[in-house]
Amino acid sequence: MEAIPLLTLKRLPQYLEALNRLQKAGLKMVPATKIAVFTDVHMTQVRKDLAYTGVVGTPKIGHNVDELILAIEQCLNWNDISSCFLVGVGHLGKALMGYSELNKKGMRIIAAFDANPELAGTYYQGIQVHSMSKFSNLLSRLHVHIGILTVPAEAAQEIADEMVAGGIIAIWNFTPTRLQVPGHVIVENIDMSSSLAVLSRRVAERLYHTKN
Amino acid sequence: MEAIPLLTLKRLPQYLEALNRLQKAGLKMVPATKIAVFTDVHMTQVRKDLAYTGVVGTPKIGHNVDELILAIEQCLNWNDISSCFLVGVGHLGKALMGYSELNKKGMRIIAAFDANPELAGTYYQGIQVHSMSKFSNLLSRLHVHIGILTVPAEAAQEIADEMVAGGIIAIWNFTPTRLQVPGHVIVENIDMSSSLAVLSRRVAERLYHTKN
Repeated sequence: MEAIPLLTLKRLPQYLEALNRLQKAGLKMVPATKIAVFTDVHMTQVRKDLAYTGVVGTPKIGHNVDELILAIEQCLNWNDISSCFLVGVGHLGKALMGYSELNKKGMRIIAAFDANPELAGTYYQGIQVHSMSKFSNLLSRLHVHIGILTVPAEAAQEIADEMVAGGIIAIWNFTPTRLQVPGHVIVENIDMSSSLAVLSRRVAERLYHTKN
Repeated sequence: MEAIPLLTLKRLPQYLEALNRLQKAGLKMVPATKIAVFTDVHMTQVRKDLAYTGVVGTPKIGHNVDELILAIEQCLNWNDISSCFLVGVGHLGKALMGYSELNKKGMRIIAAFDANPELAGTYYQGIQVHSMSKFSNLLSRLHVHIGILTVPAEAAQEIADEMVAGGIIAIWNFTPTRLQVPGHVIVENIDMSSSLAVLSRRVAERLYHTKN
């Protein structure tokens, strides 16, 4: 299986989003130029990216929309369902447990864990919450590969270590902590703090220059 | 006010996170090398980034921890509270409404909006939910600059247009839609779809190569 470049992978969901809209609008065929307009990506780049899906377009007519949607979903492994564990049932954890988009994108949270013993045995959105003491045992029994980390920053590294020790090969990290993990473990960060830093500073700069 | 480079801005919260931990541990002074170890950023880069805060370190001793924390928070405008509106009170919107970290990072959601009329007049985490029809009016009365977008993808552009028309200068976009906005409007994307695309594909590649 070919390693698709990082930036291509990040753009594929945007194409998918555009293609789904075009499909709803009744379009059967779509040229790369149209996808380029919808996603604000240069058409040369769109063509390069779509080449990774293996779908070949017809000159001047473009790609078959249905075929391209399926091919992108397959590239992203969104047709397969991957089971995953979530650790940290706070506001953010609960949001992800109720986020139906995840299921459409091949990810199913099959169990959640929290340090708060009062949550153990409860259910949220049909997903059972367990105490952390059950984590390793359930992990090895259920052969789960992906862990979602929604704990407070100071607990992140410790839980990541437990995930790695239990055989997790990919961590979706929603904490601001930079995790130290062995080289074979994949970490994808959703870094809200960094994003908020950029936003706050840019707004402050903008307002300052408006006033002065 | 100096425009701080994007990547520096993204790293400042990581330094802050490390500094807060060191402060809790009782440290008064910290050399850039120590911050480098904690954040996995090269110390030359750490020094360059910290220069933007205006805090000058002492050779071999380093920076005063308390002073550096304050200076970074000031750089990021996290000491000031910016009021913002949130549109889209689904799972993700609710998670942000309950996310206390936002207040620590200078952002306060003062009102929320949703297209579902049944939510109008309700409260969540002490924040009132309004119908979308009140959006423009409240926006102009309360001089809010920042909008948080947590609506479904297909509604994102329309709401963004309303935000811009009402005077919003920065949108924190949690939808997978690439927003088309005028050049003066700041957009910060939290793109969970892209992140999930990278994660899913890398896991698939890893498992494929383990099997074959």
